[in-house]
Amino acid sequence: MTEIVELLVCTTCRRGQPTDAEGPRPGAVMLDRLSAANLPDNVELKGVECLSNCDSGCSVVLRGGPKRWTYVYGNLTEETGPDIVAEGAARYAATADGLVPWRERPEHFRKNCIARIPPLEATE
Amino acid sequence: MTEIVELLVCTTCRRGQPTDAEGPRPGAVMLDRLSAANLPDNVELKGVECLSNCDSGCSVVLRGGPKRWTYVYGNLTEETGPDIVAEGAARYAATADGLVPWRERPEHFRKNCIARIPPLEATE
Repeated sequence: MTEIVELLVCTTCRRGQPTDAEGPRPGAVMLDRLSAANLPDNVELKGVECLSNCDSGCSVVLRGGPKRWTYVYGNLTEETGPDIVAEGAARYAATADGLVPWRERPEHFRKNCIARIPPLEATE
Repeated sequence: MTEIVELLVCTTCRRGQPTDAEGPRPGAVMLDRLSAANLPDNVELKGVECLSNCDSGCSVVLRGGPKRWTYVYGNLTEETGPDIVAEGAARYAATADGLVPWRERPEHFRKNCIARIPPLEATE
């Protein structure tokens, strides 16, 4: 369970705001707030540029090692997103394969999974 | 350029059809047709179960090694999808980092990128 989990946050996300909106982008704000959140030790938080989920942002990715499923979650906001993502990341990081039982997933994650990608190595 | 590229096709996809529709699922048909398509030697075609992009299926994933971006594409059909995906996979497989210049991507790929995920290893 010590394998590193990456939590990637799309920092370029405008979350549908007009391109001339002032101030930091919602995705960057979400990353900033997540950096102050209580994340498990094996979760590594990283900002990335454009996850190409612009129509359903803000977006994050959870991935970790060749045995875990990768998940893309969307429709997050900088207000409620950090708590949801911190909880979901902790659940994910506590698994060996990334498959969190449905009822243990944050409700937002259940309804806003954009895509999932199988592990590089088949699990048994 | 010899690193293997994986082309994952969601075979459980119903592409919005009712659950009692008869016959093989659209995703399975797409995989079957792709297996007869002309794919580069370094592209490995695989069927997978549920990429969780059900609202925008049929879906495929292109990934390949730690230096390439991973892409999820959606809104494909079993009729036109195989040719589009075969072309897009060939373009992808010809790159080192998975980044195909915008104008060289199949038009469907430009408009139906569901998400992209950065390489495991940073590229320079």
